[in-house]
Parts: sequence; structure tokens; C-alpha cells
Amino acid sequence: MTGAAGFLGGRLARTLLDRGELDGRSVDELVLLDVVAASAGEGDPRVRTVVGDVADPALLGETVDARTGVVFHLAAVVSGQAEAEFDLGMRINLDGSRLLLDACRAAGSVPRVVFTSSVAVYGGDLPDVVTDATPLTPQTSYGTQKACAELLLADHTRRGHVDGRVLRLPTVTVRPGKPNAAASGFASGIVREPLAGVTTVVPVPPEVRMWVLSPRYAVESLVAGAELAPGRLGGSRAINLPGVSVSVGEMAAALERVAGPEVAARVSWRRDPAVEAIAATWPGAWDTSRAEALGLRGDADFDAIVRAYMEDDLPHNL
Amino acid sequence: MTGAAGFLGGRLARTLLDRGELDGRSVDELVLLDVVAASAGEGDPRVRTVVGDVADPALLGETVDARTGVVFHLAAVVSGQAEAEFDLGMRINLDGSRLLLDACRAAGSVPRVVFTSSVAVYGGDLPDVVTDATPLTPQTSYGTQKACAELLLADHTRRGHVDGRVLRLPTVTVRPGKPNAAASGFASGIVREPLAGVTTVVPVPPEVRMWVLSPRYAVESLVAGAELAPGRLGGSRAINLPGVSVSVGEMAAALERVAGPEVAARVSWRRDPAVEAIAATWPGAWDTSRAEALGLRGDADFDAIVRAYMEDDLPHNL
Repeated sequence: MTGAAGFLGGRLARTLLDRGELDGRSVDELVLLDVVAASAGEGDPRVRTVVGDVADPALLGETVDARTGVVFHLAAVVSGQAEAEFDLGMRINLDGSRLLLDACRAAGSVPRVVFTSSVAVYGGDLPDVVTDATPLTPQTSYGTQKACAELLLADHTRRGHVDGRVLRLPTVTVRPGKPNAAASGFASGIVREPLAGVTTVVPVPPEVRMWVLSPRYAVESLVAGAELAPGRLGGSRAINLPGVSVSVGEMAAALERVAGPEVAARVSWRRDPAVEAIAATWPGAWDTSRAEALGLRGDADFDAIVRAYMEDDLPHNL
Repeated sequence: MTGAAGFLGGRLARTLLDRGELDGRSVDELVLLDVVAASAGEGDPRVRTVVGDVADPALLGETVDARTGVVFHLAAVVSGQAEAEFDLGMRINLDGSRLLLDACRAAGSVPRVVFTSSVAVYGGDLPDVVTDATPLTPQTSYGTQKACAELLLADHTRRGHVDGRVLRLPTVTVRPGKPNAAASGFASGIVREPLAGVTTVVPVPPEVRMWVLSPRYAVESLVAGAELAPGRLGGSRAINLPGVSVSVGEMAAALERVAGPEVAARVSWRRDPAVEAIAATWPGAWDTSRAEALGLRGDADFDAIVRAYMEDDLPHNL
């Protein structure tokens, strides 16, 4: 697992260790790679923690080997940072993905590679409803890097180097902890900060639509994505996960319904043109029937996402 | 110009030197880069020949500078070779394109970059008619590398590093000289060898459809592509050139009409599964109305392509 010290990586690692098996095979070893030491499963004899750069081919060569059955490739420089630091984004998001695929090819075990991609692969003049087959027309460097990595994963799959599957993640919310540099970070802040008694500023107008998924279902989808039989995937390895399409104004209203007006009053609005420009590239409506037909699941609505955060994370923050 | 020692590069170089201007600016210097010395314009004081690897960042840094106004990026490992030699294709077709864009960005002159892409960016379950906006679903490593380079060019254009335009070339035929390693090479051989008194073997069935353009119009399109005002391009920088859609059987029939039955009798048919598998990914029908609206032109039919070859190249071969 790359990006294993991240929020999603940590939850996925704990889930895999708790399950003890994946696709009917036991989890004998879980290798957690990140630039800082991953803390999930500390003390568990099945865990090997590797600290290093995902774009370091020597490190990848040591990390992926003939015993590697599944690779979760979560490491990424997020959208806002990839836009601000072009070379860094190219190195981690494009080179990192490419070198990981090369390492899998060299290892020879044809691992299943679960790659987390993003709605940022879409943009520009989009159809009213986005499907798995909508053209990739990214309007950010992050989206460009993810789209290239998707194409490379498909080619390595076609060549038999890996058995790849691309999961296009909606914005994962609510993330606990500190804000990150993702342009979509406010989608977590709008719930997390008010619930922590802190005011938050939303940098886009209330009518901006987002496509969101709780951490619960993000982790469930990653596991399910790894377990999908290749024969069920057909011609395309990329799947838009079943997110909830919701406006930012509706997100604030859901917070008020679930947590009350006093909490919701801590949300304020001040437009940030840089974030707004990125948000303008996000699609409004989605057809995720293919994901659902494959058995992948999402949240019922944003109220459920707020409640999931309060159940899963809020006790630890208080 | 990268790939300047190639067939198309040589013709384009001679055309540019003959014109002496491009988009209203005089051609003061023409830098011809390739792994072997380009011979076009030999002795012309405006020509600087650079021998080296297009994936060598130091060389690119020396070649592209603040005076660079237009870059023609033609260098590529062709489809058959990129499929057989994966690493080589990745290095030349993907790294070469990426490093060239980085060199343009470092030079700071925001050059127009004319990138030759390919129908190989399409494949799989295609619509009946392919347009400029059809999703990129390559089914070969070559197509994957071209698609990634297209995406990177679009991002560098959006960021203001270059003013890019992608010309998706139909199969350029008839190429004079020796066969190359392109899977589509037979589209030249089917005319060139019989006219030279040599028998030729076509590796696909007559009903396989191709999308073809003469060298004349390929060069004209490259020049016109460089001269297109950015404002005319709108949201997408990629243009499918106005090729002729024709079956391989019709190509043989055109040869017979133009050059006679004795010449056409030198065409024989023997299927090659490797070539056929690649050919199966080529689309059948095209909507190139956007290219035409932008003033780009192509051949009337395959008879005209055979005649163009006989006029432009045959005297030199005899």
C-alpha cells in the first residue's frame, strides 16, 4: 500500500488486518509505504513499514516482489498542491504511478493494482450526466496526472503486467484531523470545524455541486475493488464510485438538520477565486449504475455522511 | 523540429525553408533534431542540425531557448516497435514529449507546439463515427503514450507554458523508401512496392478500413496547424485531420484504376495476426468537420493519393 500513512491508507490498513483475508487469501504481510512512517497496525507481526519516496524506483523494486498479490496505490499529491507545485505533482502522481507499475511488471506476480483516481479527470464542456465512459478532459495538473496514470494502468493491464482497477473516488468527507491542501478540503471542514466548536469559511458559493463519499464507503469500495473478478470488469478498468451528488448549500443544511442550528451557525462563506476555479471543473451529476451493478455501495445522503463522521470520528476528537 | 530526419520531418523542413516564413514571421533559424543527422536544407545557413536523443533533457535544454517560436514535435517510436519494445516506446513517446514540454516551459518563450498524434489513441468499443471529442481509449502501448502526451500538452497549454495543438494524423501514405516498423506500414507498401515492380503482401483482410492522408496534405496540415490562431481552437487542442476513410480492398482497386492491372497484380494477401490485432483497434468512420471548419484540407480519395505519390516521389525512385 502506497500513501499508507494517509488518512484513507490508515483506515484501509486497519480494515485489512481486522479482516485477515482479501479475496479468499490470507493477509500474510501488509507492506505500508509512505514518506513518513505509517502507524496503522503497529506491533502487528504482519505489518512491514517502509519509509521512502513512491517515485524512487530502487525502493519500489525492494517493496514489490514475487509474493505481492494486491497493491493499493493511494499515494498522491493532492489537487491544490499539484496545481501550485507542478514538478512535485508530476513526480509523485505521474512518475510514482508509472514506476510502481514498472516494479509490478518486474516482480512478475501480476498483482491486482487498485488505483485511486479522481473526478478531476473530468472537466470542461461535460455532458449533463457523467458516466464511467465520459472522455477524460482534465482541467488541472492533478487531473492530468491522474488521467495519464489511468491510461498507463490500462496499458499495463492489457499487457498482462498487472490486473488493474481504477476507482474514481468522490471527494472523501468527512476527513478527521487537520485541513489538507486539496481544493476540496472545505467539504470536510464544513462539517468537522463546526462540530469541533470552530468557525469555518467555505470558499465557494452554496450552489457549487460536489460528489462525496464517506470514509466508511471509501474503504469498503477499495476492498471490494480489490476483490472484483477481472472478468466482471469488461473493456474498461475505471469505475466511478457511487457518491452522493450534493450542493455545498445542501451540505450546510444537512449539518443543521443533524447537529443543530448552533453548530451550523459556525459556517461562513467567502469566495476564493483559486478554489472556485477548480470547483468549476467538477461535474454536477453522475451515473454510477455500473459501480452499483458491480456491487459497490455508497452513502444514502449527506445527512448519513454527517452521522457517520459523528459515530466514527467525533468521540476521538473530543 | 524533433524527428527531423524522418520522412515527414524532411518534407516539412524543406517546405518551411522554401516558404521562408511561418504565421507572418520569418524563419530565421530551423533547428533539426534527430538521433541521426537530418539532411533537409543541407548547406542552408538557417539550418542547425542537432544529433541526439529526444529524451535527453540536457540536449533539449540546449535546443529550445527563448528565441524558439514554434516546435514541431514529430519524433516517435512507431506503433509496432512501441508494442514490441515497451521501454523504448515509453522513453521516446512519453518521456521525450514530456521533457520537450519541460524544456519549452524553461525557455519561457511560450512556443507554439505542434504535436503529431495518432488514431491509435482510439480503440475498443468505439462509436460508429469518431469525432475530435471521442474518448481516448487506446488499446496499444503506442496509443497510450500518445494519449498521455496529448493530455500533458493540454495541461502545459492551460498553464501557459506552451501554445499547443495536437494533430491526429491519419496513416500517412504513400511513404517512399523502405518499409518502417509501423503496423500500418502496408498502407504504403500496397502502392509503393507494386509500382516499383515488386510484389507485396498485405497482412490484413481487404475489408479492414483505414484512414489515410497523403504526405502532401500531412505537411500542409502541419504548417496550417502551426498557423492556427489560438482563439480558434476553443476548449480542445486536439484535431483529427481530414483523412480519407477507405478499405484496404478499395486501396488495391484504386491502384488498379490509376496504375493498371499489371501493377495491381503484384498485391497478394496473407493475414498476420499481430498486425490484424492492431488493425482491429482502428476506427471505421470519422467526422472531421471541425478540422475542415478550421481550414485544414485532405485528399479527395485514394486515387488522388496514388497519383500524388506517382507525381511527387516516383520519378526519384526510378
